[in-house]
Amino acid sequence: MTVQRADARRNYARILAVAEEEVAAHGADASLEQIARVAGVGSATVRRHFPGRRALLEAVFGERIEALCARAAELATAADARAALVEWLGALTAYAASARGMGDALALDETDGPGHVNACSAKLTWAADPLLHRAAQAGAVAPGVTAADLVTLVTGIALATEHHPDPAAEAHRLLALTMEGVSPRR
Amino acid sequence: MTVQRADARRNYARILAVAEEEVAAHGADASLEQIARVAGVGSATVRRHFPGRRALLEAVFGERIEALCARAAELATAADARAALVEWLGALTAYAASARGMGDALALDETDGPGHVNACSAKLTWAADPLLHRAAQAGAVAPGVTAADLVTLVTGIALATEHHPDPAAEAHRLLALTMEGVSPRR
Repeated sequence: MTVQRADARRNYARILAVAEEEVAAHGADASLEQIARVAGVGSATVRRHFPGRRALLEAVFGERIEALCARAAELATAADARAALVEWLGALTAYAASARGMGDALALDETDGPGHVNACSAKLTWAADPLLHRAAQAGAVAPGVTAADLVTLVTGIALATEHHPDPAAEAHRLLALTMEGVSPRR
Repeated sequence: MTVQRADARRNYARILAVAEEEVAAHGADASLEQIARVAGVGSATVRRHFPGRRALLEAVFGERIEALCARAAELATAADARAALVEWLGALTAYAASARGMGDALALDETDGPGHVNACSAKLTWAADPLLHRAAQAGAVAPGVTAADLVTLVTGIALATEHHPDPAAEAHRLLALTMEGVSPRR
């Protein structure tokens, strides 16, 4: 972006705004051709900015994922380590369950080529790690749980509640069940 | 089916076998046109048997879902109600995580028209209900858990682990975490 001229930057901002609208309307299956049409640019221009679906979703959800990572950093010094972890997972769940396409973005496979990681879930996993570590040190987390497990569980809850009449409320309820246990041994 | 002649029944059996292969290879996005091509019939014939994606997936997964329902009925008289519930959810998870397209079949939305229920998840929910009820009576289940919650949680785990190198093992581990609780309050 640093060497782009001002008009190219405006162009990118407009394409990204259209991409956000299309993903909000159609989820992860939003059409790159439709984004180009609405933005009034050629398909090649859209594909230069977003070479694949992964790049499109990373751009669309990037800002919110950064905000969730910043929130994790804030919560990492909270007095109650378990409450901090629960609060952050709640924020992630609220967003993943209400933003169409976000669950798919987090579950994205390797079709963009081997060796690529899913940047969305990798950033969130990295951000969750200190919260998990502190909660585990406080004895508040089951043995063997990883930050990747937490992001995967939230991703699954978001995907499975996508068509529920009230996805965010349902996802939040299922997250609480997952944290407390459906059938904990006493 | 009862009034179909023998050749029509053979035709259906061949189309279903091809449909099973295509869904195993491509998941819930398997193409009805491709199924018609491989089965050597017209698209209209395929669409007469499977008017939509929901009907296709219900036919492909129907037999296995019936088997899971039968297993639930067997387990409903087991001595240990919690172990019976855990065993059945494990069987559901093993199948949902290893059969491509099954997670999508269980999470299917209402695009086939309002008023339709998802027959796959409805049957499994109905089958899980007596197991859940007995485990709850034994005090082994958190308050407020429904059979639909259990099917939704397993669906989410299957969807979120679909691209994991070992989906069945990973899904089983996450199911165990969900049952015991990621962070149960002591």
